[in-house]
Amino acid sequence: MMKKVGTHLVVDAWQAPRDYLNDPERIRRALLEAIDFGEATLIDLCVHQFSPHGVTATATLAESHIAIHTWPEYGYFAADLFFCGSGKPKQAMQVLQRILQAGEVEMREIDRSFPERALRPTLQKVWESEIVGA
Amino acid sequence: MMKKVGTHLVVDAWQAPRDYLNDPERIRRALLEAIDFGEATLIDLCVHQFSPHGVTATATLAESHIAIHTWPEYGYFAADLFFCGSGKPKQAMQVLQRILQAGEVEMREIDRSFPERALRPTLQKVWESEIVGA
Repeated sequence: MMKKVGTHLVVDAWQAPRDYLNDPERIRRALLEAIDFGEATLIDLCVHQFSPHGVTATATLAESHIAIHTWPEYGYFAADLFFCGSGKPKQAMQVLQRILQAGEVEMREIDRSFPERALRPTLQKVWESEIVGA
Repeated sequence: MMKKVGTHLVVDAWQAPRDYLNDPERIRRALLEAIDFGEATLIDLCVHQFSPHGVTATATLAESHIAIHTWPEYGYFAADLFFCGSGKPKQAMQVLQRILQAGEVEMREIDRSFPERALRPTLQKVWESEIVGA
């Protein structure tokens, strides 16, 4: 059995308007609205415009992070939405899609997790604690 | 055919020392060394300590991003290394592993990409340009 800590949406999106993908203010707004609709809490936001084109934005969240990287020359952007706790990453992605208007979207949903056995004390440790307790 | 824009390593790691995962200075150092070894360029760095425990760090890169989220109570951390261009995400991950000392690591390598057909003008657009050119 796996212990899940969060849901990660890995999104590739294309056929988006190039001027939208090269507009840092639109991307900032998309992120802030996505965080709001996704019921997440912003800790820190970085929006960076590249020369001659392209925008990268990372939002550090109490729930983990959202990152967007755009290639306006291809009409493409990559988005990652990693949410632990009660946040709603799919609602957040709907907002990004509404504001950035990709014609096609491919979304992978990945459980971020580890094996529950990692939480059990090893036999060696149980044995040691019994020795100590004896 | 797909047009690849970058490589994304999605890493779940566990059985790491809890005090390492709750030490924001260690995690900051791990990120900065990883960026150096991964031949990437830092744009912005956010390292945040949660109460009562846990650290989240996001590094915005010229090559895209690295994010780390730790759950010290589980000995677990999640790392994402998304690199476009000539950066070396696997070398960067080796540094994270060396400094954070997870006993077990599961790494998925995802090509971030879109279909090359998205770059071709549609027949409709070719037709329109011929009409305009006529």
